[in-house]
Amino acid sequence: MNTPVAIGFDIGGTNVRAAAITATGTIIDREHKQSHGEAASMEDAIVAMTQTLSSRHEVAAVGIAVAGFLDEHRQNVRFAPHLPWRDAPLQQRLSQRLGIPVSLEHDANSAARAEAAFGAAQQADTWAFISIGTGIGGAVMTGGEIYRGAFGTAPEIGHLPVVPGGRPCPCGKRGCLERYCSGTALAATAQEIAVAEGAPEQLWTGESVIAAARAGNSIGKRAIVEFSSWLGVALSIMSDMFDPELIVIGGGVAQNHDLFLVDGVEKARGLVVGAGHRPFPQVVPAALGADAGMIGAAHLALTESRQDTAR
Amino acid sequence: MNTPVAIGFDIGGTNVRAAAITATGTIIDREHKQSHGEAASMEDAIVAMTQTLSSRHEVAAVGIAVAGFLDEHRQNVRFAPHLPWRDAPLQQRLSQRLGIPVSLEHDANSAARAEAAFGAAQQADTWAFISIGTGIGGAVMTGGEIYRGAFGTAPEIGHLPVVPGGRPCPCGKRGCLERYCSGTALAATAQEIAVAEGAPEQLWTGESVIAAARAGNSIGKRAIVEFSSWLGVALSIMSDMFDPELIVIGGGVAQNHDLFLVDGVEKARGLVVGAGHRPFPQVVPAALGADAGMIGAAHLALTESRQDTAR
Repeated sequence: MNTPVAIGFDIGGTNVRAAAITATGTIIDREHKQSHGEAASMEDAIVAMTQTLSSRHEVAAVGIAVAGFLDEHRQNVRFAPHLPWRDAPLQQRLSQRLGIPVSLEHDANSAARAEAAFGAAQQADTWAFISIGTGIGGAVMTGGEIYRGAFGTAPEIGHLPVVPGGRPCPCGKRGCLERYCSGTALAATAQEIAVAEGAPEQLWTGESVIAAARAGNSIGKRAIVEFSSWLGVALSIMSDMFDPELIVIGGGVAQNHDLFLVDGVEKARGLVVGAGHRPFPQVVPAALGADAGMIGAAHLALTESRQDTAR
Repeated sequence: MNTPVAIGFDIGGTNVRAAAITATGTIIDREHKQSHGEAASMEDAIVAMTQTLSSRHEVAAVGIAVAGFLDEHRQNVRFAPHLPWRDAPLQQRLSQRLGIPVSLEHDANSAARAEAAFGAAQQADTWAFISIGTGIGGAVMTGGEIYRGAFGTAPEIGHLPVVPGGRPCPCGKRGCLERYCSGTALAATAQEIAVAEGAPEQLWTGESVIAAARAGNSIGKRAIVEFSSWLGVALSIMSDMFDPELIVIGGGVAQNHDLFLVDGVEKARGLVVGAGHRPFPQVVPAALGADAGMIGAAHLALTESRQDTAR
């Protein structure tokens, strides 16, 4: 047993990742489980992984990053497109089963908290996080607090309508930003270019487009150019709406920022309102990579459990 | 001489309006001047109108609603598309000439302050204001404060890109939301429908489209239907990004809310992320009409001058 740690969880559609994390954001142990879709088995996995890590560390609290909407008090999961919970009192159920404090947070908000505490946004006051992976998500912090909105769902950038009648989205609408600025979008764009050119059939993924672009393949390179342009749209929307001093770009796709970040920023500089008459935010890649969600959730859990103790 | 009042100004491209306004938001006197484009003559008009109103009332402070970007401290006008100031230290220049406290505020923020203090948003904590007139503007308040962003320009909804390669905008871009959801947009839509139908040539304006729709004219009615749909987009963008509990719709076009508000809200309910799994904000028309900008500016000026005195 050492100094108290918190466990940070990152709950994805098919994987549950957990880590024991110190008060300074350092990961000292990890667990990983494949999970199947039901709520009960997902919660069982969280309990089992907490027990495993608790056998090796003094665990003070548990923080959970959820890819879905929480209510404004972060007690209930309202809705999560790829997870089984619907209006589920997850905070209460898990804290009862675990017997230690449990904090929930939206996954992009968790990653933003980690970047603010230990990563790329330590000096920023009003700043935005854009996470680009399979989809695209966002978070905004001001004065050290997450901007949550009235019902806890702000800011949802992924499904803003940017192309009327455009690419169909699993959300049921068409032309959502996520269909043009995400890993999935990279694959769709490469596919469109390949079909238009009569290129040999191939199953494109975000990863294969990036690899192709790095290898000099013209379809991959053109898909990246189109992606950069939509990244510019995403950055300009975040700037026009929230006017941050800093935008941090995280998520799996963003790890390849050398391919598109400079072009995306240049595009965004021309798109923002009052271009040339207002400061444009600094735009930087995230510092904490794929662990940011777990680190931010653990940090939140430790902070909240200390506040509870102090009362 | 009576109890102290503040003068609220509303500075438009061709008109300067001013009113003497009490601490409870009541307008007790008005002045109005046509103005020509130069900064010096605009400032002379503000000084002259302040002197006129000061001869009839005990004026404690002056508040000015400006249709343009202010810096984050509300001291300087960075840029205003239809006004002559560029990076102009307007607060300092006017307070020196007038010898009483002067407060500047963005026009949509001023109107939002008025609706929060005396109008439709008195009970709201986190809420958004959308002003639809010649263009479309927005404001967000949370916990009684305006959300300004890092550089004072948030939230700029009017020039979000919603139609790639769409209608050209005076801002230099194409397909901005303002080109589809504003008085100007109503006219442009009616014009497009008329041309497509080979209808007799006619100069449409926002007002004439509304009058035509009220008279049962099919071009006017169809332009209103299209406008409603874009209003739904505007409401859904505001909801997705800021997640307010209330959206107040103000500005000149919004005074005709009976023609389009119900349809716009229905459209927005289907567009927001997680539709059906999250609360949708209440949407109501503004209570204070065209005077909201002046009232909000005067209220801010009185509040800030009292804080200065208390120090």
